[in-house]
Amino acid sequence: MQNCWQKVQEQHPLILNLTNYVTVNQVANILLAAGAVPLMSDEIQEIPELIELAQGVNINLGTLNQRTIPAMFLAAQTAVQKQKVLVLDAAGAGASQLRTQTALKLVRENQFTVIRGNISEIKALGGKSSPSQGVNAHLADLITFENLPQTRQFINQLAAQTGSIIAVSGALDLVGNNRQCYVLQHGRPEMSRITGTGCQLSGLIAAFVAANHQEPLKAAAAATALMGLAGEIAWQQLQPHEGNATYGQRLIDAVYCFTEKNWKDGVKYELY
Amino acid sequence: MQNCWQKVQEQHPLILNLTNYVTVNQVANILLAAGAVPLMSDEIQEIPELIELAQGVNINLGTLNQRTIPAMFLAAQTAVQKQKVLVLDAAGAGASQLRTQTALKLVRENQFTVIRGNISEIKALGGKSSPSQGVNAHLADLITFENLPQTRQFINQLAAQTGSIIAVSGALDLVGNNRQCYVLQHGRPEMSRITGTGCQLSGLIAAFVAANHQEPLKAAAAATALMGLAGEIAWQQLQPHEGNATYGQRLIDAVYCFTEKNWKDGVKYELY
Amino acid sequence: MQNCWQKVQEQHPLILNLTNYVTVNQVANILLAAGAVPLMSDEIQEIPELIELAQGVNINLGTLNQRTIPAMFLAAQTAVQKQKVLVLDAAGAGASQLRTQTALKLVRENQFTVIRGNISEIKALGGKSSPSQGVNAHLADLITFENLPQTRQFINQLAAQTGSIIAVSGALDLVGNNRQCYVLQHGRPEMSRITGTGCQLSGLIAAFVAANHQEPLKAAAAATALMGLAGEIAWQQLQPHEGNATYGQRLIDAVYCFTEKNWKDGVKYELY
Repeated sequence: MQNCWQKVQEQHPLILNLTNYVTVNQVANILLAAGAVPLMSDEIQEIPELIELAQGVNINLGTLNQRTIPAMFLAAQTAVQKQKVLVLDAAGAGASQLRTQTALKLVRENQFTVIRGNISEIKALGGKSSPSQGVNAHLADLITFENLPQTRQFINQLAAQTGSIIAVSGALDLVGNNRQCYVLQHGRPEMSRITGTGCQLSGLIAAFVAANHQEPLKAAAAATALMGLAGEIAWQQLQPHEGNATYGQRLIDAVYCFTEKNWKDGVKYELY
Repeated sequence: MQNCWQKVQEQHPLILNLTNYVTVNQVANILLAAGAVPLMSDEIQEIPELIELAQGVNINLGTLNQRTIPAMFLAAQTAVQKQKVLVLDAAGAGASQLRTQTALKLVRENQFTVIRGNISEIKALGGKSSPSQGVNAHLADLITFENLPQTRQFINQLAAQTGSIIAVSGALDLVGNNRQCYVLQHGRPEMSRITGTGCQLSGLIAAFVAANHQEPLKAAAAATALMGLAGEIAWQQLQPHEGNATYGQRLIDAVYCFTEKNWKDGVKYELY
Repeated sequence: MQNCWQKVQEQHPLILNLTNYVTVNQVANILLAAGAVPLMSDEIQEIPELIELAQGVNINLGTLNQRTIPAMFLAAQTAVQKQKVLVLDAAGAGASQLRTQTALKLVRENQFTVIRGNISEIKALGGKSSPSQGVNAHLADLITFENLPQTRQFINQLAAQTGSIIAVSGALDLVGNNRQCYVLQHGRPEMSRITGTGCQLSGLIAAFVAANHQEPLKAAAAATALMGLAGEIAWQQLQPHEGNATYGQRLIDAVYCFTEKNWKDGVKYELY
């Protein structure tokens, strides 16, 4: 996975983000931390030109609205036409009809390279929705070692159906296509107390896949590993009086300061 | 007040925020720090569904615009119908006709649970406007121990007129209904050099009242106390070369790390 | 330059910012750090009233859209009419037709006090565009000691043509009018790994010029020096495990903690 990360640092892929205004600054900074170049816009008039400049496009539904939804559809369509990496962060799918329907329509009409979300968001895309809790995963949905085989199967099926890599974030992270599935065990539960770690991961996935066209599944898994490992490293550096705000900052710092040794010491995954 | 805080940590109330894009990230993180769950949207099509999921709704006028104002009215109306806690942050009321009139119309048409602002913003709602200085309180308006009795009376009257708890933030914080008024002395003057401490407090008030339906006045005062005490704790931790950016981060950290001892040692208020 | 800074701290100029949602929080906090007062809005209905309250207006194209572009034009026109300081941050000019044309039209129709950008953005305004790389300067455009004379001449010409002070940010910072040009050598290359340092500088320039009407060129150069020196000071304070997120925070802190000694020890510039 380390070589996927090195390619991001060598190639500095430019990632166009149509993302929410809650965590947009953190998405930009984590892309810069990883060696990528962020560009943010949601104005439909300039989206096609900006996609020409970009190697990847990251669409995040976090604060979608009537002005930005058409820009998202044009961005997805243009990215597919121009053969750019295309990532969907299905933030809040399942929480409202608008989010669920927008996500489903985006996925039906365009072949995304990667679709990322928590398990409840991904289930909403697969037609298996649970009562939503806003942007958090529903308890009944949580992935455990017990339900792991069924969840892997669900991911392989959804990947086959959509033609996309499916990345599910949680205590266990799963990243799969129609045949294979990485299961990664990184990160800290306290990462859910920082707003935007999922959004940041989606940005990183776009950068990693853009710099590693030949092996998109491995690249998406590598981005997921980086985010989780950075969460572990940042946690170790926290002082007793420091909380989620400092933790979020140190997480981006940890991506910035990531080393080959961090890769060698840290990565823990299984590939099914 | 400590028990109001404990209920937030036990119940994890989900707070829907229609808030400005300047401080939205800090509002999300301080809600997470306090144990609540933030959800951000300003898209009118999904507001009713998201309010179903939420225990409280926080409407902040900070960067209101023609797209989001109708969403704010629908959010207020729906929250009242569904008996959800409803908070108004009257950011910038008095600074433009649009802000003042939007705030007045929101308050006239909907019974907010709590209305929060600095003294100039609250006076603009009470028809006593001073020449505005943007989003800061006008000097002539500042609450002192000398004008405290009149200010308390003004708050009780505005509370009676609106049916809302009125929370006025400043060097002295006042939180009153039509009969009573908490006067709290916490915080640091340097908190006004961080953008968004007021916005963050409005989010916390929504969470505290949502988790403490039986005693909304005390809950709103407890949120105010928490914010002020966190400002004091964060200040003590600042190093000589650290400024407002680090201060803002440590403030959220202090909410995250808040302890029972902090409550017992710190709270200073009078209830009139 | 130090006296320009002191006037900001004495006069607390109120700066209205029509800026992007990526770095808006950092722009607000750095203005507060410097002693100025930020106000953020992009709603056309209230722009004229808010400009009445303000001493300066800062227009940033970073996430321009169809709703905010008309507000930018009205803001520019009103600021000129009311004789307020008017700054353009040409973020991304050259990256899309919409950005380039909006910037050109704004500059053609309104006499900005200062126009700031990286060299590629400024060249796009001067009709000398290079293939764009999003919001970063194109390599072929970079200012070096070799091409400095030509670049100074270009700045003097563009200043004569627009009636504006031209501020070009990069490894060398140039700030010139139709006759003179400051060349400043401050900052660190790592500042380009933080999102929003340019946006923050544009805010500071608006505040510095607003508090120093008599000498706008020197004031714009002083703001540029402050930003660069703060970048150096912040860098010295970074620990080995800290990255771009902490660096960005310490940069704002350094502006907050800036001293007369920092001015005396640090400023390095030539005036041509």
